[in-house]
Amino acid sequence: MTDLQPVVDEIYEALKPRLGEGRVADYIPQLAHVDPKKFGMAVVDVEGRVFRAGDSDEPFSIQSISKVFTLTLALGKHGEAIWNRVGREPSGSSFNSIVQLEHEGGKPRNPFINAGAIAVSDLILAGHTPREAIGEIVRFVRFLADDETIAIDPAVARSEQATGFRNFALANFMRSFGILTHPVEHVLGVYFHQCAIAMTCTQLARSGLFLAAAGHNPITGHLVVSKQRARRINALMLTCGHYDGSGDFAYRVGLPGKSGVGGGILAVAPGKASVAVWAPGLNENGNSLVGSLALEMLANRTGWSVFGQ
Amino acid sequence: MTDLQPVVDEIYEALKPRLGEGRVADYIPQLAHVDPKKFGMAVVDVEGRVFRAGDSDEPFSIQSISKVFTLTLALGKHGEAIWNRVGREPSGSSFNSIVQLEHEGGKPRNPFINAGAIAVSDLILAGHTPREAIGEIVRFVRFLADDETIAIDPAVARSEQATGFRNFALANFMRSFGILTHPVEHVLGVYFHQCAIAMTCTQLARSGLFLAAAGHNPITGHLVVSKQRARRINALMLTCGHYDGSGDFAYRVGLPGKSGVGGGILAVAPGKASVAVWAPGLNENGNSLVGSLALEMLANRTGWSVFGQ
Amino acid sequence: MTDLQPVVDEIYEALKPRLGEGRVADYIPQLAHVDPKKFGMAVVDVEGRVFRAGDSDEPFSIQSISKVFTLTLALGKHGEAIWNRVGREPSGSSFNSIVQLEHEGGKPRNPFINAGAIAVSDLILAGHTPREAIGEIVRFVRFLADDETIAIDPAVARSEQATGFRNFALANFMRSFGILTHPVEHVLGVYFHQCAIAMTCTQLARSGLFLAAAGHNPITGHLVVSKQRARRINALMLTCGHYDGSGDFAYRVGLPGKSGVGGGILAVAPGKASVAVWAPGLNENGNSLVGSLALEMLANRTGWSVFGQ
Amino acid sequence: MTDLQPVVDEIYEALKPRLGEGRVADYIPQLAHVDPKKFGMAVVDVEGRVFRAGDSDEPFSIQSISKVFTLTLALGKHGEAIWNRVGREPSGSSFNSIVQLEHEGGKPRNPFINAGAIAVSDLILAGHTPREAIGEIVRFVRFLADDETIAIDPAVARSEQATGFRNFALANFMRSFGILTHPVEHVLGVYFHQCAIAMTCTQLARSGLFLAAAGHNPITGHLVVSKQRARRINALMLTCGHYDGSGDFAYRVGLPGKSGVGGGILAVAPGKASVAVWAPGLNENGNSLVGSLALEMLANRTGWSVFGQ
Repeated sequence: MTDLQPVVDEIYEALKPRLGEGRVADYIPQLAHVDPKKFGMAVVDVEGRVFRAGDSDEPFSIQSISKVFTLTLALGKHGEAIWNRVGREPSGSSFNSIVQLEHEGGKPRNPFINAGAIAVSDLILAGHTPREAIGEIVRFVRFLADDETIAIDPAVARSEQATGFRNFALANFMRSFGILTHPVEHVLGVYFHQCAIAMTCTQLARSGLFLAAAGHNPITGHLVVSKQRARRINALMLTCGHYDGSGDFAYRVGLPGKSGVGGGILAVAPGKASVAVWAPGLNENGNSLVGSLALEMLANRTGWSVFGQ
Repeated sequence: MTDLQPVVDEIYEALKPRLGEGRVADYIPQLAHVDPKKFGMAVVDVEGRVFRAGDSDEPFSIQSISKVFTLTLALGKHGEAIWNRVGREPSGSSFNSIVQLEHEGGKPRNPFINAGAIAVSDLILAGHTPREAIGEIVRFVRFLADDETIAIDPAVARSEQATGFRNFALANFMRSFGILTHPVEHVLGVYFHQCAIAMTCTQLARSGLFLAAAGHNPITGHLVVSKQRARRINALMLTCGHYDGSGDFAYRVGLPGKSGVGGGILAVAPGKASVAVWAPGLNENGNSLVGSLALEMLANRTGWSVFGQ
Repeated sequence: MTDLQPVVDEIYEALKPRLGEGRVADYIPQLAHVDPKKFGMAVVDVEGRVFRAGDSDEPFSIQSISKVFTLTLALGKHGEAIWNRVGREPSGSSFNSIVQLEHEGGKPRNPFINAGAIAVSDLILAGHTPREAIGEIVRFVRFLADDETIAIDPAVARSEQATGFRNFALANFMRSFGILTHPVEHVLGVYFHQCAIAMTCTQLARSGLFLAAAGHNPITGHLVVSKQRARRINALMLTCGHYDGSGDFAYRVGLPGKSGVGGGILAVAPGKASVAVWAPGLNENGNSLVGSLALEMLANRTGWSVFGQ
Repeated sequence: MTDLQPVVDEIYEALKPRLGEGRVADYIPQLAHVDPKKFGMAVVDVEGRVFRAGDSDEPFSIQSISKVFTLTLALGKHGEAIWNRVGREPSGSSFNSIVQLEHEGGKPRNPFINAGAIAVSDLILAGHTPREAIGEIVRFVRFLADDETIAIDPAVARSEQATGFRNFALANFMRSFGILTHPVEHVLGVYFHQCAIAMTCTQLARSGLFLAAAGHNPITGHLVVSKQRARRINALMLTCGHYDGSGDFAYRVGLPGKSGVGGGILAVAPGKASVAVWAPGLNENGNSLVGSLALEMLANRTGWSVFGQ
């Protein structure tokens, strides 16, 4: 496989004039105070080589990118039975919409919108205290990234808890339909903590490498999931990973990806590489504006689109 | 590339006990009277070899699969400007929903739901009479399939026209927002005729081959669209090609595809092959039930999923 | 009963500085070209006395106020069976919304939104040609007003027809659910003509007098409907007569009323009087802004609110 | 005024065969265990005479009827400014729908659906602890009924709290839009306690008498609200008091009314009387089935409809 460092460097240079574009999430102070001109990028190929640019080793709040990891965990614990509690269709609405829940019996459309990820947190709680469930999630992410330093930012978790009225609404609504089976406070305790995990681009790209490499981590040699499950998680990321901008991301970038309001995106080029980008300014759908551009440039230069050369 | 005939034969044999499952579309007599146990499959690989099973050379009504061809035509005439009139996001609702139009200013979510395809028909009408526009569509499909015998079934077109109240509603609604610019009767004249094109699985698979082969037809040597455009049409098929079952199709099959209520599905394995299946019984989302199973088996046996080996 | 002429005069004087407020409907030229400062008011009490102010004898397009008369006609022809085709609940949305129809099987919420009135037109068509049905409606209004000069403005009817895409959408949508049983063009032909009836405030107030007088016209002595039916039509006017501003009108005025986008409002004070006002400028819900104020002042000065002295 | 005892007796006799019809609310044990054949009725006329039938002196849970009293309280504290936080239009949807809130910026449609009443509870909390606010509500209801024995059923309040996930969802949702300004737990603490007030038909009819008597209580001589405010509260009850069955109630009964899922209805005949009925079985809109019939019979026999004799 080719040396991608020149490609990564070129993208960083090309995007420098655009750093700061978009709107930084401001619903909690910890996100609002991030320097909007930050930019990091890390590509880890399936041979384990790492290519980096910018602030690729500065931790940021991964937020909704954590939904990929908790979905993987829940599939490991409950298998395909999780689809009784959450769907796998694009939502056609924003990340925190409650309308769909009322129209469809409280069952969230997919595990990558807030409601769906909260339902997944409930599944991970089965047989655990919230503390144990949070511990399990963190250990799983460390295992994926092969990095014991990854941790939750407690101030972020507290702020999410203090301001997350909309998520409390979603959770109580699902509870009223029996989609959640644990106390709302417990489920959201897990959810808010998973969103508060802080990672660098390099750590994040390593964590997603199993999805590019047919379910196993070629660096550590660990088998994480079966080939089929890796494909299926990638399919969900492609159709649902960018909220109501998923179609646009597929059209422009052509790779499975999952964004977070912290400005990060994890993208997967099956058989090729795992990629993480970070740029705090968001577009109108809540996805990193410059980060999406970086991935579009990378896909164009490498021909990694899953939709053809 | 390997000989796929044994794979195609095996799938046909395995599915024989399930032929007839699902519900045949009955809103027009021409569809209702089709034998529900019909099954056809044709795979055309990028080297031009054809592998067939069942009723692969019997024509059926391609219905909404035509939306792939008219989208390609409209992109050729108007380029990316078409996205001012139609979006490219999954709809999160059924194929003929009008709710989204009211909430989003009359702009359809994507070119593969009815409203979106009607908007595309309006774009193809620019500068043409309905008759000319219909002629252009038929010539384009014949060119793609390299087969001058492909034709519209006039009885189907007439029936669509006589019963298509919901499509008249969608078209008038968009006209009230200025999304359509030609008389509603003209636009729907074009739309109903494109839906009434009859093709065999073999013809259909050939017609879609340019999407598997980076925009050109390796059999005829014709360049149809650029590489980038082929990728982008594939992306739209994957995120939006199966209405509110698109996420499920991506999860299970992992290939771009477009279904029609006649029971046909066109699927694309980029760099590998174009595939057409036909089985009239539909699932709850209006997609061919047995046809989807056939494609899932094919993807499993060949490893063609775009989401990894 | 007291002489109301001083009250009517006072209201006219008080509102003169506000004439021209609101936004004149401009979707057809015939409405757009009306002088926005027009104002008419006519009160006909149950003893037959008439009190007038302003342009009370200038004809204007009654538009949706006609829905009261066609509902009365349809109840006369079909009785309570009409409620199988149209509901009687407030809609909670704008006058031409289609969302509710999709969620509720094509059955309009009430006979005073566009969709509901179109369904009522379909009921009046039963056994008639469109021309006959239109003739029947005009004759009924002339009978109510005891005035043979009332007529349809043909230019308005033609303009409605030429621009009524949204109504064509509503009608086709209902047709697809079987709520309409006649050809859409016939039903809308009736509907557009009834909306194009031109009347003066005096004529309009006389036409509504039967609703104030327990179902009979105290001037002509004709019995129009039973006491119970008069009450029920009044109830529908109060809960549904001002689209998504019905609650506000009940709160501020406290009388059953029906508005039209031509700027007219017909209001009923049961046991007291029938009132018509006309002022072309509309508020954000599509109801006459100054006309609503005039009725609020009248209700305050007379103590006619149905909700207490 | 005439003696209504024979009318009330006749209604009770006529409805005896239908007692038990409808579906008793079962979301909390205290409601589920009520005898479905209970029936009470009390009419208090504006001269203070009381006419009773059945279980008119057995307390039941007034549930949402309390919304009339808290609205009156909030109007007293904040005046017309409350309409910045809650609308006054019929909702066109069920009592606990959250869809409308998402589409309209978190502002509930009216004070008689759950969301609206919760917003009113927030307004009553201003400057108070929850305990104080609850105390104020109870004292106000006792003052209205002139009866110091009226109290909250603590078991009902606890059950509401333990199972009210949907109300927690509504409250958190509004909190996310800034419609609520106090902690969700405090607001719902007030709301659940007001719903748990237990009253007899006689007490309830006395409490509503001020609405029939132009704002003052003719028995105690207390002035409760102005004439205008009494009319306005009646208008809101008529357009919004029976959730998505308000239009039907206005059509059949023709009186302002407010229902509760405990099976009670408070109705007002302006200038005539205040009426309370109780029958636990509910119709499909959540309103007392037999109670509605009783009021329809009463309105027919007395000619009290606000819409004409």
